[in-house]
Amino acid sequence: MSKFLPKRSEDYSLWYNELVKKADLAENSAVKGCMVIKPYGYSIWEKMQAVLDAKFKETGHSNAYFPLLIPKSYLSKEASHVEGFAKECAVVTHYRLKNDPNGKGVIVDPEAKLEEELIIRPTSETVIWSTFKNWVQSYRDLPLLINQWANVVRWEMRTRLFLRTAEFLWQEGHTAHATKEEAIRETETMLEIYADFAEQYMAMPVLKGIKTANERFAGAEETYCIEAMMQDGKALQAGTSHFLGQNFAKAFEVKFAPKEGKLEYVWGTSWGVSTRLMGALIMAHSDDEGLVLPPLLAPIQVVIVPIFKNEEQLTAIRSKIDPLTKSLRQKGISVKFDDRDTQTPGFKFADYELKGVPLRIAIGPRDVENNTLEIARRDTKEKQSIGADGALEVIEQLLKDIQSNIYQKALEYRKTHTTEVNSYQEFQEVLDAKGGFVLAHWDGTSETELKIKEETKATIRCIVLNNKQEEGKCILTGKPSKQRVVFARAY
Amino acid sequence: MSKFLPKRSEDYSLWYNELVKKADLAENSAVKGCMVIKPYGYSIWEKMQAVLDAKFKETGHSNAYFPLLIPKSYLSKEASHVEGFAKECAVVTHYRLKNDPNGKGVIVDPEAKLEEELIIRPTSETVIWSTFKNWVQSYRDLPLLINQWANVVRWEMRTRLFLRTAEFLWQEGHTAHATKEEAIRETETMLEIYADFAEQYMAMPVLKGIKTANERFAGAEETYCIEAMMQDGKALQAGTSHFLGQNFAKAFEVKFAPKEGKLEYVWGTSWGVSTRLMGALIMAHSDDEGLVLPPLLAPIQVVIVPIFKNEEQLTAIRSKIDPLTKSLRQKGISVKFDDRDTQTPGFKFADYELKGVPLRIAIGPRDVENNTLEIARRDTKEKQSIGADGALEVIEQLLKDIQSNIYQKALEYRKTHTTEVNSYQEFQEVLDAKGGFVLAHWDGTSETELKIKEETKATIRCIVLNNKQEEGKCILTGKPSKQRVVFARAY
Repeated sequence: MSKFLPKRSEDYSLWYNELVKKADLAENSAVKGCMVIKPYGYSIWEKMQAVLDAKFKETGHSNAYFPLLIPKSYLSKEASHVEGFAKECAVVTHYRLKNDPNGKGVIVDPEAKLEEELIIRPTSETVIWSTFKNWVQSYRDLPLLINQWANVVRWEMRTRLFLRTAEFLWQEGHTAHATKEEAIRETETMLEIYADFAEQYMAMPVLKGIKTANERFAGAEETYCIEAMMQDGKALQAGTSHFLGQNFAKAFEVKFAPKEGKLEYVWGTSWGVSTRLMGALIMAHSDDEGLVLPPLLAPIQVVIVPIFKNEEQLTAIRSKIDPLTKSLRQKGISVKFDDRDTQTPGFKFADYELKGVPLRIAIGPRDVENNTLEIARRDTKEKQSIGADGALEVIEQLLKDIQSNIYQKALEYRKTHTTEVNSYQEFQEVLDAKGGFVLAHWDGTSETELKIKEETKATIRCIVLNNKQEEGKCILTGKPSKQRVVFARAY
Repeated sequence: MSKFLPKRSEDYSLWYNELVKKADLAENSAVKGCMVIKPYGYSIWEKMQAVLDAKFKETGHSNAYFPLLIPKSYLSKEASHVEGFAKECAVVTHYRLKNDPNGKGVIVDPEAKLEEELIIRPTSETVIWSTFKNWVQSYRDLPLLINQWANVVRWEMRTRLFLRTAEFLWQEGHTAHATKEEAIRETETMLEIYADFAEQYMAMPVLKGIKTANERFAGAEETYCIEAMMQDGKALQAGTSHFLGQNFAKAFEVKFAPKEGKLEYVWGTSWGVSTRLMGALIMAHSDDEGLVLPPLLAPIQVVIVPIFKNEEQLTAIRSKIDPLTKSLRQKGISVKFDDRDTQTPGFKFADYELKGVPLRIAIGPRDVENNTLEIARRDTKEKQSIGADGALEVIEQLLKDIQSNIYQKALEYRKTHTTEVNSYQEFQEVLDAKGGFVLAHWDGTSETELKIKEETKATIRCIVLNNKQEEGKCILTGKPSKQRVVFARAY
């Protein structure tokens, strides 16, 4: 397999697919739409999980685990939820195989048919709210602040590694509250956590907003989201946080006794991010040579490649570099010293570039003599020779610089790809010529939104929180509008 | 729900079930055999995961993720594997639901039938080895040292929370090696890690041994196991590590080019522990008042209960106890200060006893005056009044003492419930009267093993590693035997 990637400018989609495979992040499995997350890809996901999990716990949430399988009838209990989720899902109908009497492997035992079919969870609101019913009696039991790390399955016809897969990994938060205000506050808090994670850790700027009714989660009263922009100008929804009102409480009869007065239904939220974030991370920063990882999520932050011709030189390099390696590790910086003699330095350089390691240090016999190191940044590809003695501080600073630089670069890209338009013609032209976020007036109706989607493939990504209010006319119908909304073609 | 548990001596099984529910560890869900792991139970599982995951990584393993769904035909590829696993499993036959034309919720869409049925993984050897095929070309790609944290489903007719559930959580390690010796070494290393975890962290002594052919994992050449003893004298298999030989390599055509010579099949291992460990932990140490948790796995290690009549007293207690709480946390000891005024101290004492918190500190106004604390151990229920100034050191020492005491207690129980017998009559008498591990001679045949199982419900738990060799006669057949094996009734 060639190490070379297609160029983004020539075939962005192919570039992405090849990058995911060549950088050892993930690959397709024999089951259509189900991926294998390879060790290197999974180690990035683990870093994401660790940061998010700590943030959830800091804000009072506990992890728990609910069943993979959901009775079919549960999906029908919340009227709009069933419309959204009870369609493309994996259905378990039998619980036993038996030997084929014709000797051809195994067949499904027709006698082991389930009375009621089970669905592999596409999301867990139904099974969790059926459980919450027993966990909540009084206001003392509230709030319930639960999170689950789990796999879910949504049958998809067109799949892409990380971005859209039949099975994916995610976390789903589910909370129950005594008051509407508290539930809304929770929904907003979790959106903030997602936005902060995206910007501070993934170095990926996001818009925070709410979805239109069309794009709302099935069963929610309001869906908040964070929207990112990829390097091809397409939008990617990176996380959602839903205010569920009392919809699921009513569907599953979850009531509580307040301090005074009669039983009341509780108020709910749910929120989630998934392995889709991996797709976002890859597409937000990487280049034609491979991945570019933000230092805060890179499994290897610094790789050291010794340049040597014999064991003696390697020994000299090792004793020179060991103290630095040690002090980097003491600072919590992950370092790999790659002294394999089965690969050339050139091969290693290209491979760590492909894998997105933020900093690469090369050190050869002359460096040992001169007490220097060559240090190269992955993001800008700048190289410099530095004195070995001050290396620790330089590395720490460079890691910070890279984290901030790739964020700024992505922010700059988003700025130059965000356009205000005032006519439908302009709207279509910008979409085709430049893509990105297109800010336009809209009359607020689902009909208009759907017509625009049908004609241009652009959807309303969100109505930005604290959106600027201004008078205008809907680009399609000319009807009055009070604010611009964010349109884009999206993943 | 009463806080009182049934007594172990009266109904051990009921005691276990009630304890799991009342201590908020887990409960049954609407789907038969699938459990909900509640936050408190899950937080213990998370501690187990963290320790094990670190041990796997220290020994060179990486986490990855493989699909939940396995093509039915995969199960048939390894001949003995299919016999063991392709029976009681959840079968996905359809991928879509649709609205019932009669308006009764949703029904399975008969047009959305899969060409080949998919099985929810009961274990992942097949899907992982089908992937390894593409990951291994040369000896440079070996060893492959992979672990996966995942859920699996095995349809079980008789289920019990944690001990035997249709869906359970586990880790499954899967490795591939260039040589037989290296694969066997890996199998043994992982067994050591499991045994060390069971003894050092769970405070649960285990026998290390190998299974007889009857009890071997379907597809393995050798199954190593750790076996623990519960307080009712029954055995519990707590973890297994399998040497797979070249069975899966041959079934999935996984070959490698060695340094010299022709392509060779790789050698495999797999090893796993599951949420069953939760059941073992509960049953190994708990008493009629509730859980007894080893400090190293307790989510709350120290609970502080203030005894107060008014806000002023509480404030005085708080300012007295705050420095201790802080210094405990600095030492990494998890402390909860429970100042709720909605519950009495008596209620709290009973509740933390039920939840197995290792140390409880009570502090009232008189303690504030005298600069003392009352400290109570969960394991022995001993209470003592100590000076507040030396509390930190006392607590650290007590946590160590509890960890070691409950291990010693379990070890003592195992010693007194391990019996050598020399006749079949004695064997049956000991099993019925006392239970535990019964060490007896066996002629080495599956027929004898099965006959004994049929007649007594006892199985051979293992042949202990480095077993003492001694001449003897099989208790059933009188045929010659070179060693005693461990029989027991088991979970």
